[in-house]
Amino acid sequence: MKIWQKNIDVDSFVESFTVGNDRVMDLQLAAADVLGSLAHTRMLNSIDLMTDQDLAVVQAELKNIYQDIIAGKFEIEDSVEDVHSQVEMLLTKRIGEAGKKIHAGRSRNDQVLVDLKLYFRTEIESLVINTEQLFNQLIQLSERHKNVLIPGYTHLQIAMPSSFGLWFGAYAESLVDDLAMMQAAWKVCNKNPLGSAAGYGSSFPLNRTMTTNLLGFDDLNYNVVYAQMGRGKTERILAQAMSSIAATLAKFAMDVCLFINQNFSFIGFPANLTTGSSIMPHKKNPDVFELIRARCNKIQALPNEIALMTTNLPSGYHRDLQLLKENLFPAFKSLNDCLEIATFMLDHIQINEGILNDPKYDYLFSVEVVNNEVLAGIPFREAYKNIGLAIDEGTFKPSKEVNHTHEGSIGNLCNDQIERMFQEMKAGFGFDKVAHSLAELVK
Amino acid sequence: MKIWQKNIDVDSFVESFTVGNDRVMDLQLAAADVLGSLAHTRMLNSIDLMTDQDLAVVQAELKNIYQDIIAGKFEIEDSVEDVHSQVEMLLTKRIGEAGKKIHAGRSRNDQVLVDLKLYFRTEIESLVINTEQLFNQLIQLSERHKNVLIPGYTHLQIAMPSSFGLWFGAYAESLVDDLAMMQAAWKVCNKNPLGSAAGYGSSFPLNRTMTTNLLGFDDLNYNVVYAQMGRGKTERILAQAMSSIAATLAKFAMDVCLFINQNFSFIGFPANLTTGSSIMPHKKNPDVFELIRARCNKIQALPNEIALMTTNLPSGYHRDLQLLKENLFPAFKSLNDCLEIATFMLDHIQINEGILNDPKYDYLFSVEVVNNEVLAGIPFREAYKNIGLAIDEGTFKPSKEVNHTHEGSIGNLCNDQIERMFQEMKAGFGFDKVAHSLAELVK
Amino acid sequence: MKIWQKNIDVDSFVESFTVGNDRVMDLQLAAADVLGSLAHTRMLNSIDLMTDQDLAVVQAELKNIYQDIIAGKFEIEDSVEDVHSQVEMLLTKRIGEAGKKIHAGRSRNDQVLVDLKLYFRTEIESLVINTEQLFNQLIQLSERHKNVLIPGYTHLQIAMPSSFGLWFGAYAESLVDDLAMMQAAWKVCNKNPLGSAAGYGSSFPLNRTMTTNLLGFDDLNYNVVYAQMGRGKTERILAQAMSSIAATLAKFAMDVCLFINQNFSFIGFPANLTTGSSIMPHKKNPDVFELIRARCNKIQALPNEIALMTTNLPSGYHRDLQLLKENLFPAFKSLNDCLEIATFMLDHIQINEGILNDPKYDYLFSVEVVNNEVLAGIPFREAYKNIGLAIDEGTFKPSKEVNHTHEGSIGNLCNDQIERMFQEMKAGFGFDKVAHSLAELVK
Amino acid sequence: MKIWQKNIDVDSFVESFTVGNDRVMDLQLAAADVLGSLAHTRMLNSIDLMTDQDLAVVQAELKNIYQDIIAGKFEIEDSVEDVHSQVEMLLTKRIGEAGKKIHAGRSRNDQVLVDLKLYFRTEIESLVINTEQLFNQLIQLSERHKNVLIPGYTHLQIAMPSSFGLWFGAYAESLVDDLAMMQAAWKVCNKNPLGSAAGYGSSFPLNRTMTTNLLGFDDLNYNVVYAQMGRGKTERILAQAMSSIAATLAKFAMDVCLFINQNFSFIGFPANLTTGSSIMPHKKNPDVFELIRARCNKIQALPNEIALMTTNLPSGYHRDLQLLKENLFPAFKSLNDCLEIATFMLDHIQINEGILNDPKYDYLFSVEVVNNEVLAGIPFREAYKNIGLAIDEGTFKPSKEVNHTHEGSIGNLCNDQIERMFQEMKAGFGFDKVAHSLAELVK
Repeated sequence: MKIWQKNIDVDSFVESFTVGNDRVMDLQLAAADVLGSLAHTRMLNSIDLMTDQDLAVVQAELKNIYQDIIAGKFEIEDSVEDVHSQVEMLLTKRIGEAGKKIHAGRSRNDQVLVDLKLYFRTEIESLVINTEQLFNQLIQLSERHKNVLIPGYTHLQIAMPSSFGLWFGAYAESLVDDLAMMQAAWKVCNKNPLGSAAGYGSSFPLNRTMTTNLLGFDDLNYNVVYAQMGRGKTERILAQAMSSIAATLAKFAMDVCLFINQNFSFIGFPANLTTGSSIMPHKKNPDVFELIRARCNKIQALPNEIALMTTNLPSGYHRDLQLLKENLFPAFKSLNDCLEIATFMLDHIQINEGILNDPKYDYLFSVEVVNNEVLAGIPFREAYKNIGLAIDEGTFKPSKEVNHTHEGSIGNLCNDQIERMFQEMKAGFGFDKVAHSLAELVK
Repeated sequence: MKIWQKNIDVDSFVESFTVGNDRVMDLQLAAADVLGSLAHTRMLNSIDLMTDQDLAVVQAELKNIYQDIIAGKFEIEDSVEDVHSQVEMLLTKRIGEAGKKIHAGRSRNDQVLVDLKLYFRTEIESLVINTEQLFNQLIQLSERHKNVLIPGYTHLQIAMPSSFGLWFGAYAESLVDDLAMMQAAWKVCNKNPLGSAAGYGSSFPLNRTMTTNLLGFDDLNYNVVYAQMGRGKTERILAQAMSSIAATLAKFAMDVCLFINQNFSFIGFPANLTTGSSIMPHKKNPDVFELIRARCNKIQALPNEIALMTTNLPSGYHRDLQLLKENLFPAFKSLNDCLEIATFMLDHIQINEGILNDPKYDYLFSVEVVNNEVLAGIPFREAYKNIGLAIDEGTFKPSKEVNHTHEGSIGNLCNDQIERMFQEMKAGFGFDKVAHSLAELVK
Repeated sequence: MKIWQKNIDVDSFVESFTVGNDRVMDLQLAAADVLGSLAHTRMLNSIDLMTDQDLAVVQAELKNIYQDIIAGKFEIEDSVEDVHSQVEMLLTKRIGEAGKKIHAGRSRNDQVLVDLKLYFRTEIESLVINTEQLFNQLIQLSERHKNVLIPGYTHLQIAMPSSFGLWFGAYAESLVDDLAMMQAAWKVCNKNPLGSAAGYGSSFPLNRTMTTNLLGFDDLNYNVVYAQMGRGKTERILAQAMSSIAATLAKFAMDVCLFINQNFSFIGFPANLTTGSSIMPHKKNPDVFELIRARCNKIQALPNEIALMTTNLPSGYHRDLQLLKENLFPAFKSLNDCLEIATFMLDHIQINEGILNDPKYDYLFSVEVVNNEVLAGIPFREAYKNIGLAIDEGTFKPSKEVNHTHEGSIGNLCNDQIERMFQEMKAGFGFDKVAHSLAELVK
Repeated sequence: MKIWQKNIDVDSFVESFTVGNDRVMDLQLAAADVLGSLAHTRMLNSIDLMTDQDLAVVQAELKNIYQDIIAGKFEIEDSVEDVHSQVEMLLTKRIGEAGKKIHAGRSRNDQVLVDLKLYFRTEIESLVINTEQLFNQLIQLSERHKNVLIPGYTHLQIAMPSSFGLWFGAYAESLVDDLAMMQAAWKVCNKNPLGSAAGYGSSFPLNRTMTTNLLGFDDLNYNVVYAQMGRGKTERILAQAMSSIAATLAKFAMDVCLFINQNFSFIGFPANLTTGSSIMPHKKNPDVFELIRARCNKIQALPNEIALMTTNLPSGYHRDLQLLKENLFPAFKSLNDCLEIATFMLDHIQINEGILNDPKYDYLFSVEVVNNEVLAGIPFREAYKNIGLAIDEGTFKPSKEVNHTHEGSIGNLCNDQIERMFQEMKAGFGFDKVAHSLAELVK
């Protein structure tokens, strides 16, 4: 059943090529699609394009379908092209002619636009929640192991004393900046495109402000040409925000793979969380972190893929945009999985203490000794020269005590400040307001 | 002169390979470098690592150097490795031993980190100002030509009536969402990494909050390992924000190249702003817009380049990070140029009226006629069928009057709302606060 | 059943995360996996690591499994980790202990390496065959419509006379150069990694030259560390070759979408191959070509994705490499689909004649007139000036006859030469030799 | 001086924006431009479009200009738009009217196309020569250190014995496959686009086969529309080939940075080739290899940049193509630099022996022991279990002798075969034939 199809049969080869994986992808938009229709029909009623009676049956049945979707009891039939058609068909089957009226003043173009924005909002919220879990885990580990020193590297060369407190805390703070990007994506998603029709508006006296409020959007995509132009752009921005979290996770995974390597031996995981070899007992392959790294690097490639698929397309809808779902939609689950499993693995991380007792790390402390001399009044360049000579002459004595006191240093991690920043950032999303609006809508 | 160089000569081949274009790139960081030193030395004085007397001469001379930089009278000598060394060398040459003391409690790593953040703030402000110019230009054109209709396309097929008002306004609104990304980049840039030293902090009792305030930063990069980890990440986020503006401009340029093409003939530019051929008088090559498109697509490739150069690097400084400057720094000028020349070109754009008089556009209005029937009470699917039959039978009469009234449509562009969103977004940056802090510092 | 698993249970969360989609992906490697084992066991027998008796039963049963795979009757059970384990398990279930011996002298690492190379060879051959179909179609259309002129554009401005002969032929010739890339990929794939074990070789006296010959490879990946290093690299090179064909197709699809647009109206397709609107009868949405464009641009993003997932990984196997299958494997089908449907659609393309009768194309011929003067002896710059003046004064008369005779021009397309180049390129692959070897192996 | 400029002044803002860096970039095309003109004018003479007398003076003066270019005495003046104009202007200034005739039957479009192909051929040859130098260096090091064992890693976990022989040899063999890609690029470059004019051919009776032979091309880009379409495509393919070499180098650099790290300590470099710190005497920062890695990863981003700049452009010339030079041209020097400095650094690499004496590497040999049992007749899975138990019970005794004999293993590196493959690949380019043709042309 295709809405635009009248008497002409479309060749089946063409049909299977053009439909592609749309049915599978569209399933994820089902809840959003019904929410959009709940708001749209209330608005149609308010401008006298739907009777009170029709509205009542339409709303009741849409809410039934919504409950089915939430319960996992909704599917798109093989003979039906997409989620919008499936919902309309179900509705019409159950309540008759009134079901057909929900499409007035809408095009499939703005219908999918609003579905995507609603769906993206949900996915962003999940990502933020999972990011918070990982953030909290990292902060806790940072606090717990704040006194365990490890070498710090520059140029991958042993350089200065660092600590597990710093290492875990660094990745926690990295997530704060990642949320800044995610919040920008949220702002772009949190505007209402409904009412833009096929990208050129409608001659119906739609009340777009009303649907904006009903759906809990912060604002409108006013200009209808821009509302359509947001397709592809919204996806790219969201993928960029996801790639920011992904980059943090991938870097962390690289560190883990290095630190679990036997030449470093800083950390470990229980045998049941690694894969091993019975004849190489110390071999603990960090498959989970290798796959976190790989999945996250794949997500880092997403924004570029979207750019390549949309660049140099003139304004107006193109069918190309429909294909953007295929790598983007699975990426939400993939990134959420990575966040969850990283949090889970960190519940079991084993920290080696006494790492710096190994004499190969002695020179780590040379800068400390220089600074101690400076604090005692010797000019920096001179102190630096003195220690250099002592080392050359073999008379250097490392003082393995680290006394860093400034903000963000080994002795003063400021994890409370980092937590403050995270919570401020999270508060900026306003998930509650959205949840409240949607709860009203399906009530 | 290399600071880390004692008695060993580094092979000159190696030296020229490693220094690369750093001197040219670093010149752009000169002002930022001095600002950082102005703040750092005041802090050193506050923790008794610099005497009041030394501070006085250092501050005075740094301000002189700053004025030279602003006046374009500063350069990095061939024998000097980078901007930090050049400033320190000049200072020492002019004020003696006191000049050497400015390095205490700092590493070149956090010095360049803070330079980059200060420099990026400046560049972001320029980009926002130029974006605003273009935004205003687009809004004005949208208002001026709001009554001139053009065809709207879907699938690049003639579809529905649109207008120059919608077309210009759409790109204006697109810039609003682009600013959301730029503001995320601004937030990431507007945190102070100074005091993180080589990425592992310092045993000096630095007051990082003090330099944060002096330099007008909103907050600190607290964790010193994260402060260093921000390198590469900050660049990628900023490049992503730039790619958002660039994508808007590139798409607009594609539209322009299409609309100036003789098969469309919607717009034109004066002969002196296009390149032509004396034997093909109607040929007006839109080189400027082709190059805007190309430059902006190049900028769209930047985030991926940075990702490829930083992915899978473990935490800690790597020399690789130094190379990120090479395509990023010129991109600021390139994008600013594109914004400026687009604004300039639009000052001269010529709009063709009466485009829709061509009968090939008649069917544009069929949806209007359907909707009129619906408003008169006929169900949508039925009205749709009626007009389809009328067209088949050749009895269809287009009504070329467009009466769209809802928010963001042809008849109700809501440009005032779009302007409000732009100004709200711009206010979120807080450029004034930063400007005030820096003015205090160099006073 | 996991081969490396002894007594320790791997947490099920970890298991589902690490296995991911491997079972689905691995199904495509099944035939290749059996081919590898057929060759490997014959080699084991030749070096006395498998008895003649064991070899006989193993070969017979492997050939049964191979036939099942070809017949679509093979699957990877949920309890089995990958295709290698599934084949080994089936074998052992059916023939007992002998089945376990096929793994001697091999690691899963070189097993999957050889599977991939065998699988890629098959996919490359399919792609070349489908490319040839499209090539032939384009050459035929070029010949058929060689006398139908169309405008040629530069800067998207009407510039010079062109023809459908040139347009179709250009894309045919583009495919010749694409095959050069595909042949490089073929060469990289057509070397034998079997015997490299886990990437560091084996203490067994393997005869790698023997398996090379049995599997029809051209040469060995000699160095065992390199054999492993080829993973990821082979995929990237193959993706680059695919991106070359994809770029040709995407560009062609863009031209089609432009030329079918009503402002151009150069070509058309029957209604059943486009999607339309009953109330906009001239609307023929070229969905197929929009989706060819989108799919091919997606494929163009693949090499970069692979680069991002492999860059900066040190030498040696990493689990990351396993994830490369996920976007690469489906891309083979996607590109083959695009090649097939493009060929199919072109069977039905409708060409408009008389396009250049429209007076807006008159100036197309001005260069012809200049050249005619030059051939009559007038210096180029002077002739150019004369025609320019004639045009300015309105006295220019276009001569709409095009008389281009040189190689590759409108009047002398040289399609026979282009066909020669294509066939020379195709012959360079040597598919027959490979087919012969594999036929021997499964006989 | 702009050729297309008659009486209308192009606004200077527009001019500086459109010319951009073209003058700097074009300088690299100067030699190629003259070669193209030498061939083109001989062809013009052969078809009676240039007199014998004119040909003589033109050829003589072009050869003078060619010698100036080779001697570094050629520049593009500020008032001149590009290299083609500069050569034509010089010629006309020196030999009068005859100079103007060289443009007949050509457009700047095919002039730059042929310039690019000639220039790319030269650059490919340089890259291949430098690749050969590095290849030879790696083979020599592989042979020299073939008996020095190192640990081999999988999942970055200590896994199996490897050797410096294997490690160096692996990267040598990697370069063989890289040359396959470069040869594909060479084939694409080694076809003649001259005579395609503005992309639609010419009404002059050009003899394109003649210029093909004079310029030493293997074949023609026959179809003139395709000849133009090759722009952007040729660049992308060449960048892909460069990215292949770059990926090999970047991976090698990553290994070097890891192996020089003190936790590994496998290799070293003299102090004057690393950068260090006087107070951390064991700190030897491998800046050269970090920068090789960074530069090569940057080159890996190039193909995607070109794709983003050319994707979805319809056929025919667009000004966008001119901007492709900006990152591509400098990449040739950058990659050549990397190849040269890597070869140079490897001249000084220091290899640590006795690495495997460290007991942490004992389990490396467990697989050897398993295999020895298998060779003694015990089934693989059983032997595997036995050794596993021995290890569990602490009774395992590593036999640190490695006896690998098959092709490509520690004891049988097959470097002679790898050299054979390299030389076969190199011979496929046919540089001599090209050199011979060009020598004839400028003689």
